[in-house]
Amino acid sequence: MGRTVRPFRPKEFPVPLTQLQTIRAEADSVIILDQAQLPHRRVEQRLTSLADAAHAIAAMQVRGAPLIGATAAYGLALALAHQADDATLASASQTLAATRPTAVNLHWALHRMTTRLAPLPAAQRGAAAWREAQAIATEDAATNRRIGDHGLELIAAIFRKTGRPVQLMTHCNAGWLATVAWGTALAPVYRAQEAGIPVHVWVSETRPRNQGLLTAWELAEAGIAHTLMADNAAGHVLRSGKTDLVIVGADRVAANGDVANKVGTSLKALAAQAYGIPFYVAAPESTIDRSCPNGEAIPIEERCGDEVRFVPGLDKSGNAARVAIVSAETPVCNPAFDVTAASWITGIITERGIFAPDQLSAA
Amino acid sequence: MGRTVRPFRPKEFPVPLTQLQTIRAEADSVIILDQAQLPHRRVEQRLTSLADAAHAIAAMQVRGAPLIGATAAYGLALALAHQADDATLASASQTLAATRPTAVNLHWALHRMTTRLAPLPAAQRGAAAWREAQAIATEDAATNRRIGDHGLELIAAIFRKTGRPVQLMTHCNAGWLATVAWGTALAPVYRAQEAGIPVHVWVSETRPRNQGLLTAWELAEAGIAHTLMADNAAGHVLRSGKTDLVIVGADRVAANGDVANKVGTSLKALAAQAYGIPFYVAAPESTIDRSCPNGEAIPIEERCGDEVRFVPGLDKSGNAARVAIVSAETPVCNPAFDVTAASWITGIITERGIFAPDQLSAA
Repeated sequence: MGRTVRPFRPKEFPVPLTQLQTIRAEADSVIILDQAQLPHRRVEQRLTSLADAAHAIAAMQVRGAPLIGATAAYGLALALAHQADDATLASASQTLAATRPTAVNLHWALHRMTTRLAPLPAAQRGAAAWREAQAIATEDAATNRRIGDHGLELIAAIFRKTGRPVQLMTHCNAGWLATVAWGTALAPVYRAQEAGIPVHVWVSETRPRNQGLLTAWELAEAGIAHTLMADNAAGHVLRSGKTDLVIVGADRVAANGDVANKVGTSLKALAAQAYGIPFYVAAPESTIDRSCPNGEAIPIEERCGDEVRFVPGLDKSGNAARVAIVSAETPVCNPAFDVTAASWITGIITERGIFAPDQLSAA
Repeated sequence: MGRTVRPFRPKEFPVPLTQLQTIRAEADSVIILDQAQLPHRRVEQRLTSLADAAHAIAAMQVRGAPLIGATAAYGLALALAHQADDATLASASQTLAATRPTAVNLHWALHRMTTRLAPLPAAQRGAAAWREAQAIATEDAATNRRIGDHGLELIAAIFRKTGRPVQLMTHCNAGWLATVAWGTALAPVYRAQEAGIPVHVWVSETRPRNQGLLTAWELAEAGIAHTLMADNAAGHVLRSGKTDLVIVGADRVAANGDVANKVGTSLKALAAQAYGIPFYVAAPESTIDRSCPNGEAIPIEERCGDEVRFVPGLDKSGNAARVAIVSAETPVCNPAFDVTAASWITGIITERGIFAPDQLSAA
């Protein structure tokens, strides 16, 4: 188990943008923000061993594809710090791969690490692993910052036109908490903050796992104005002229521009279209699956019904607790994602620019 | 306080359709189902006085416009049982009117009662009040049953075509729990059950107040197949071809066919339209406001943000409890209703038949 580091540093509020990061190396250890305790408590954990890193991933102290990948890479570096023979490399990699078997970025990061390290003499692997893990983390932050640069152009154009705070709606959590830094859908918001453009964000609760509460928390950390709403409220808010644009993240983008993202995304896209509000998807190039022709070909994960039946939070005494909202016998359907048709999407913001969904394959 | 009546009768399961009612007269008292304890406990309360009835309305042991009206009427009858002079009539009416000042049906029912009773000699008022209250309740059930008859035609036509259980989606709770009996949106489902047509209902949680859990409960009581889902799942479920039609209730229908209903309704209407699934609104004629030109003219109530910040349910020990899902400082927007445009609605089912939204004014 990682040791709790609280407070890790004197808390400035709002937290400077450059410090909004989920993971960072420090001396021979790695500090992560423990997301299992959010949005209720800000606790950092110090990871000093392979076991710490594996636990952080398995217990969802870190979440979000890019962050899981970076944590796994650091975990391998921690494993190789004292002993870096082939057997250690193989077993550490195996341990990390087993933490969340279906996480694509986890396997990508471990593959990149082992490909880089295997040819080296054992004596050089420790330092090389550390450098490679840092490179993976740094590249993620840089990619997201470029997504932010392109999205910033959209926000700046609205601000130039209206002269008032830009009103943006998002869904789920695709902010800095889901990545190493900056986030995807929220990167343009943080870049706008840097550029001195006021932005207000409409945050959707995102039942059943309530990742919108993480979004509200991370925006509060950065001092960015926001308002939380039930997912059901999106239609009314979009209709009432309170929103200039919608930006969401993506789990997978098909070659034709159809997007799979957190369940409920498609409802916001339809409402945005109905009320003439631009709807953007922000995602790194690595999310675009050109081998997947369209949304029909994307399988949608069905998750445990207890995510719907139980709601976690804090009880009256401020302790972590959960309540059952229905009986355990109530039949439940719990798809994790939905598909938003390319024709409902104004543009896809990647680190290379903003593309119309139907021009992705040529991009 | 009403006395708890549990169990009021030996429980049959599923409960026969004719016994699915929220309120009924019995000797000189009134039995209500205590909805404040649903969906976790089935408790009935016996109301024997004006104070009992006023408490039942104020504490939301009864909810839903038609049911509130019927309860107020019975409350007046209970008040006049022993003393029925003008002063008692006036003060009882005033007491009941103050329980939920903005409930239109409450005032309508009290107005109907006093108009009927005031001209009578005091000695006749007690019995007349009882008869009038029963008439109000009976008329509500009869109106809803006729809505069910018209909706049944839609369900029967689908069943004749497909030969498999009809898949229906609804939102919020517009079933028998919200009325005296039968409900509005769910009346066609219960009529189908009577007619031997199998129906499966997709039930949306309906955050923030979770009235969908009442819908799941009342369908379970009737032995009707159903599946609960997060509100966000509606787009995915409608896309995946699992739904034949959507039926929702209405809080107010404008002359042009625009409909105000529980927040989130418009998102389901848009998704149904996108996937070519018929979307119906079921509502009594009394819900149609011909003096209201369109949805723009319908004010949308903004409710307390704590409905979003806190979720009620049962704790581990099975006791009523609630958890805070975000900090009390989180800014929240909580509209209670939204507007569904007439052009997204296939038809409006009333007790007089099914009308295209744009033909309402001529109907």
